[in-house]
Amino acid sequence: MKNLQLERIGNLNEKLMNEAQVRLDSLTKPIGSLGELEKVVKRIVGITGDLYPKVDKKTVVIMCADNGVVEEGVSSCPKSVTSSVTRNFTKGITAVNVLSACARADLAVVDIGVDDDVECEGIINRKILSGTSNIARGPAMNRDEAIRAIETGIDIVRDLKQKGVNILGTGEMGVGNTTTSSAVSSVLLGQDVELMVGRGAGLNDEGLKNKINTIRKAIEINRPDPKDPIDVLAKVGGLDIAGLAGCFIGAAIYRMPIMIDGFISATAALCAVCLKPEIKNFIFPSHGSQEPGSKKVLEALEMEPFLNLGMRVGEGTGAAIAFQLIDCAFSAYTKMGTFGDAQIKQYTPQ
Amino acid sequence: MKNLQLERIGNLNEKLMNEAQVRLDSLTKPIGSLGELEKVVKRIVGITGDLYPKVDKKTVVIMCADNGVVEEGVSSCPKSVTSSVTRNFTKGITAVNVLSACARADLAVVDIGVDDDVECEGIINRKILSGTSNIARGPAMNRDEAIRAIETGIDIVRDLKQKGVNILGTGEMGVGNTTTSSAVSSVLLGQDVELMVGRGAGLNDEGLKNKINTIRKAIEINRPDPKDPIDVLAKVGGLDIAGLAGCFIGAAIYRMPIMIDGFISATAALCAVCLKPEIKNFIFPSHGSQEPGSKKVLEALEMEPFLNLGMRVGEGTGAAIAFQLIDCAFSAYTKMGTFGDAQIKQYTPQ
Repeated sequence: MKNLQLERIGNLNEKLMNEAQVRLDSLTKPIGSLGELEKVVKRIVGITGDLYPKVDKKTVVIMCADNGVVEEGVSSCPKSVTSSVTRNFTKGITAVNVLSACARADLAVVDIGVDDDVECEGIINRKILSGTSNIARGPAMNRDEAIRAIETGIDIVRDLKQKGVNILGTGEMGVGNTTTSSAVSSVLLGQDVELMVGRGAGLNDEGLKNKINTIRKAIEINRPDPKDPIDVLAKVGGLDIAGLAGCFIGAAIYRMPIMIDGFISATAALCAVCLKPEIKNFIFPSHGSQEPGSKKVLEALEMEPFLNLGMRVGEGTGAAIAFQLIDCAFSAYTKMGTFGDAQIKQYTPQ
Repeated sequence: MKNLQLERIGNLNEKLMNEAQVRLDSLTKPIGSLGELEKVVKRIVGITGDLYPKVDKKTVVIMCADNGVVEEGVSSCPKSVTSSVTRNFTKGITAVNVLSACARADLAVVDIGVDDDVECEGIINRKILSGTSNIARGPAMNRDEAIRAIETGIDIVRDLKQKGVNILGTGEMGVGNTTTSSAVSSVLLGQDVELMVGRGAGLNDEGLKNKINTIRKAIEINRPDPKDPIDVLAKVGGLDIAGLAGCFIGAAIYRMPIMIDGFISATAALCAVCLKPEIKNFIFPSHGSQEPGSKKVLEALEMEPFLNLGMRVGEGTGAAIAFQLIDCAFSAYTKMGTFGDAQIKQYTPQ
């Protein structure tokens, strides 16, 4: 997989991480008492190779794509919602627009496979297909298309890095993408489909049963190879998941911190980590989505969400909110007084 | 308890809460998909009696007091840290200074019982005692002093309301106050002391054992009445906990949302709710502190923390961070487009 540049992914800078720890331990608070905020700082120092990195230019990358499997009735909202909401991202009225603004973050909206013409200012046109094929009847796409979708994510991250962006969030819009995410994650984790499936935007009991059966059928027909994440993405995944997997790979190549949002983006992170385990070092969780599969995927990634808000909007909303926690972490790291400033002897455990 | 004005505490405005729900359901997202953010909005509408309430003037009230029980060696930091950190709140260098600034929140630092002269600009002098007595040898204070401490909290909230503050956080500084909080909460909840005690700022195993034994001794000697929260506060509590309990009561009287921080402030909230269960409607959780007692108290209050950051700083740091979630909630509520704006048919469960 030379074109995915996985060999370029290196380790964290441990020397600088130790220096960051020294600074953290000098701040007027009990040692380690800022918990995850301290770990976030340390890891971002290790990622960027900068003892005082900037995290002020934030962008949520939103991969938008349609999923052929929608024709099986797996979603409670009509397929047209994908293109409508994709357009609405440029109008500033969606949940992720509003929540990104709270964190002073921008959006990068990518049409990687919307089955409609959404060309307009504010949407990056990287359409690979006009939606995938129905996974209940055959593969979503061919292997080459899956690789191109992943490369698209890597390219988007490279371009954002060149524009000065220094921290990324991940989001998506694609009716039917909790179905494809459940399929991909249950294959990669070897979990029973039923445990990985939720109600998405709002399925009832019968809809949920149909969704489970559709995913089982898709896996049975396509027989994706659990050891080959690209095969899994091509056969039972989607262009949005593949594009986001590329973003996680790109973040590791270009050494930027990147946040998971909900279930779809967690599944994409899992694909990236299955391709190259070191990518995990560059990824941060955000919230615990209400989709049951989200919890399983985060467990597999050994990540605990920072936020428990019972959200299930998608779009990158959880990542947008969690950006503010990163700001908190770096404010504490750079602006708190040290024991020297505070004229207090450092507390030592007794 | 006429002077605590508990009879003034009313119910939430359910009619307006229903109107807020109609607005929330009109926004372009699956019904209910913003989870806790929607519940926060609805409840603050019910508290304030305003369909579009302002939550832009935020203040963390920090009750500072010394605890006589520190002479039993229950804390890993010296007693002098209480007055040093209380002074440092006015210098802008503590964790809560920095994290409040991230949320554009102010501090109201109250000396309710520091055993030192901390009089200076930026500290509200409402000292009731120069520290409490050692609960391992007798009551922390008498009943009248406990009531005055509670009244102090109510007064502080009234004054802040008059200054235009519209949302409150709670914080504290007082070496030894995880010990008093463990004592108070284990009596009120009828829980074994061992389950309610943690390492505070950083006790080792031996220190932890001493802390548990000290609390057991304090409860045995003082025999606080679990049905009488003021008796419990007076005998095994502290001025900071009592003052914060007053803040929770005051928030309910003056109809302002108020956020719990960590274990000490959760214990104060529990005292207030034991005095008058309706107060619970005005209280919001923030983070899950690493102190084990925090989890038990929040469970008793039937609240799940929004943030899981493994923090144990105190000072109001968790509440300060969580203020930003309230801002997110109201941004979504007031700025997102409706299905009408978005030209999408509302998704209905199928």
